Formats: sequence, C-alpha cells, structure tokens
Amino acid sequence: MSQLSVDAFQTLIDNELPLVRLFGIRTQEIGHGNATLRMHFNPDLIRPGGTIAGPALMALADATLYAVVLGMIGHVELAVTTSLNINFLRKPPQADVLAEGRILKLGKRLAVGEVMLYSAELDEPVAHVTGTYSIPPRD
Amino acid sequence: MSQLSVDAFQTLIDNELPLVRLFGIRTQEIGHGNATLRMHFNPDLIRPGGTIAGPALMALADATLYAVVLGMIGHVELAVTTSLNINFLRKPPQADVLAEGRILKLGKRLAVGEVMLYSAELDEPVAHVTGTYSIPPRD
Amino acid sequence: MSQLSVDAFQTLIDNELPLVRLFGIRTQEIGHGNATLRMHFNPDLIRPGGTIAGPALMALADATLYAVVLGMIGHVELAVTTSLNINFLRKPPQADVLAEGRILKLGKRLAVGEVMLYSAELDEPVAHVTGTYSIPPRD
Amino acid sequence: MSQLSVDAFQTLIDNELPLVRLFGIRTQEIGHGNATLRMHFNPDLIRPGGTIAGPALMALADATLYAVVLGMIGHVELAVTTSLNINFLRKPPQADVLAEGRILKLGKRLAVGEVMLYSAELDEPVAHVTGTYSIPPRD
Repeated sequence: MSQLSVDAFQTLIDNELPLVRLFGIRTQEIGHGNATLRMHFNPDLIRPGGTIAGPALMALADATLYAVVLGMIGHVELAVTTSLNINFLRKPPQADVLAEGRILKLGKRLAVGEVMLYSAELDEPVAHVTGTYSIPPRD
Repeated sequence: MSQLSVDAFQTLIDNELPLVRLFGIRTQEIGHGNATLRMHFNPDLIRPGGTIAGPALMALADATLYAVVLGMIGHVELAVTTSLNINFLRKPPQADVLAEGRILKLGKRLAVGEVMLYSAELDEPVAHVTGTYSIPPRD
Repeated sequence: MSQLSVDAFQTLIDNELPLVRLFGIRTQEIGHGNATLRMHFNPDLIRPGGTIAGPALMALADATLYAVVLGMIGHVELAVTTSLNINFLRKPPQADVLAEGRILKLGKRLAVGEVMLYSAELDEPVAHVTGTYSIPPRD
Repeated sequence: MSQLSVDAFQTLIDNELPLVRLFGIRTQEIGHGNATLRMHFNPDLIRPGGTIAGPALMALADATLYAVVLGMIGHVELAVTTSLNINFLRKPPQADVLAEGRILKLGKRLAVGEVMLYSAELDEPVAHVTGTYSIPPRD
C-alpha cells in the first residue's frame, strides 16, 4: 500500500511545484513501488515539428518518480532528484501523455526508478527515463 | 563563426518553443561549437526547499544544446534531442541560471554536447548535462 | 523470429570480441526484440567488497544489447553503441549474472534498448542499463 | 594535494581489481580533484571495426573516477560507483587510451565526476563519461 494517497500527493505538488500546474500534470495512481501520472495537453507544451517539448516530458517523468518514491517512504521533504536520464523514442503527437513509473531499488540513502512515457494516441512508448533520488537520513 | 546569430536563434525559439518564454530563457552568445544562455529567475521555477525545479534546469540545458548544434549546422528544422543525461550537483538559489554549452562531437548524423549550469550567485556549478542530437540527412 | 541464431551470434562475438571470452559471456536466447545472455562467474570479475566489477556488468549489458539489435536487423557489421547508461542497484554476489535485454525502439538510424541484470543467486535486479545503437544506412 | 599517492592507488587497484591488470590500466597522476590514467593497448581490447571495445573504455573511465574520488577522500573501502553514463564520440584506433578525470561535486554522501577519454593517436576525445559514487558515512 502507498504511504501517500493520490490526493495528498497531488495537493503536495500543486502547492510546491508551480511547473506541475503550468504543465497540467495530474496524479492517477500511486501504489507501493509504482505510480501513474497524466499530463494534459496544452499548446504551451509544443515544440518545432508539432510535437511535445522534451522538457515537458522530463517534468512529467520527474514528478512520476517523485510519486513512486514518496509512495514508498511517505512525505519526506528533502528527497531530491540527483540524476535523470531520458531517451526519446518517438515523437509524441499533440495529445495527453501518460507516465508509468516503478521503483528499481529503494535503498536507505538512494532510490532508483524508471518511467515509461506513452502518448494517449500511440501504442508504443514515446520516451524512457531512469532517475535517482537522494533520501535524507531518517530516524 | 556561428551559422546562426544570437538574435536569429532567440527569435526561432521564442516563436517555436513556448516553454522558452515561460521559463525566461535568453540567448547570450553563440560561437562555433559553444553557446551561453541565461534563465531569468521567476517564482514559477521553484520547487520544495526554496530551490529551482529540475525540469527548468533541463529545459535551459536542452535549449543550450540546441543553440550549440544550430550554431554549427545552421537552422535545420528537424534536428531533435535523442537523449539527455543530467546530474544535479548543488541546489541553485532563487536567482538567474547560466548555461555554458559546448560540442563534444559533430558527426553527420549525431551530435553530442555538454552543458555546465551555474547559478548567478554561486561559484561552483549546480548541474551538468550531456545530450545527443539526431541530425537529419543533408544534401 | 530472430534474424540471427543463438549459435551464429555466439560465434560472431567469440571471434570478434576477445572480452566476451575473457568474461565468459554466453548467449542463451535471441528473439525478435529481446535476448538473454549469461556471464559465468570467474575470479577475474571481482572487485573490492567481494562483488563483481562494474565494467564486467557493462560488458555483459553491451553484448546483450548487441544481441537484441542484431536479432532484429541481422548481422550488420557497423552497428555500434553510441551511448550507455547504467545504474547499479545491488551488489552482485560471486555467482553467474543473467542479462535480459529488450528493444525500446528500432528506428532507421538509431536503436534504443534496455537490459536488466540479475544475479543467479538473488531475486531482485543488480543493475539496469539503457543503451543506444547507431545503425548504418541500409539499401 | 591528493590523499592517496599514484603508487598507493596503483597497488590498491592491482591487488583488488583483476580487470585493471587484464586491461593494462596504469595510474599517471592523481591531484586534488583530478586524475590521469592510461590503458596500454593490447589485442584483447579490440572489437569489430578494428577499434577498442566499449567496455574497456568504461573500465578505464570507472578506474579514473575511483582515482579522482579516493584522491579527495583517501582510501575508503566502500566507496562504490552508483551510476555511469558514457557517450562514444569517435572510434579509438588500436593505440593507448588516456583518461582525464575531474570532480564535479564532492558531497558527504555522493560524489559526481566526469572523464574525457583520448586516444594517444588522435587530438579529439573518443568518449565522455559522467559517473556518481556513493560514499559511506564517515566519522
């Protein structure tokens, strides 16, 4: 079971991450070690070629990894991304993007996760992300 | 010498990348194989801990690599990022961020570059990025 | 169906990649878009802490991605790795390592794949790798 | 000044990392935050196309980052690589490879460094690596 509800996580990121609102990122599900988020398409997200800008995909993936990690350890203020690696696979059309994240390892000090990004209008993934989180010492 | 002036590149990204305007990204210099861009601080960029959100830093780095690549090959519409790797080094304070990018390799089909990100208020870098660009076949 | 048999691929890497023999890497399965390879433990692979050296895991992952890509496009001499990203998840004990690779995208010029590495003695993965391959123009 | 001499580091890796001997890796210089290592060419390192196998370059880069980190913190047994990202830039000819590493950030728990790899016979770099190290808690 998740240590943080979908609503609690959404409230947290709405309050603390203005980019989440700008990008229209909504939490759909948080499990123990996985999370699904959705980015609602809006014209601010486009880039040349009529596709969605890479940094918007990275923002969605980063928020998804945050949901995955907090779903496992609860609301820890100072958990921070330490690295992120993205491979762009296909050009996402101008449509919502879904992110499915899962934990690869939860250590005491470091968490590693991966996120697959899908367009709501394509079967195959549009990008793949791995990221690492630093977790502050806990009592 | 650059194949694209600072003004031409800024106009290009202002017109085609709405995120560039949202994030306040300005081109300062484009050389042959290097570029410097600046992101003006605004409150939309923050994240918990009073620092700047990772995706904003990634957007700045991505735009900087784009400037580096177009500075070498001119305005090629379909040059696209294929991968990006970021290591967060220090928490940037609420201030402008400077990005210094340079080319590592310009091949016929693939370009690789790196970007060092600095806060206007710190001596040491806040993040390091490497990225690859796919370049469409040219005549 | 794979474009290259397990035996043909093993012969290819045995002949052309001396590291494959040094590291005891054996091909177990090649499908259309996936491959499984095994690295037999030997004392040359260790590193401080009684675990397996990172570069040996990288070599296994690289060979696995090569099998995944050639399984899809057949024996193309000049397909080369252009980037590789590895996250080490858990210390592998002194035992065989299994690599399960799969394709994320096969484009005309670029292929992207991922590999999960498992110890024969642990349930959870010991490392995760993503890699990109450049594919030469074909007729 | 380095916390570990060139000879002490070479003895350490010779004793504890059999791959270092297999690959002919020699330490040339360790400073405070930088290190230079050399891999002597031998035929075991080749791959198809008459160039040097990627995993050998990764092994050299990994050893170089280890030298950079131990040069700053001294001989700490349990400092381990947590991630490594390599971009291959040019095919190295069959010649020695030089690795120039430097620290990007030394934190209490995490170190980040980069390595540029050069062939002894080319001016331009053959690969670029970033890596992160986990540092155990110290008293």
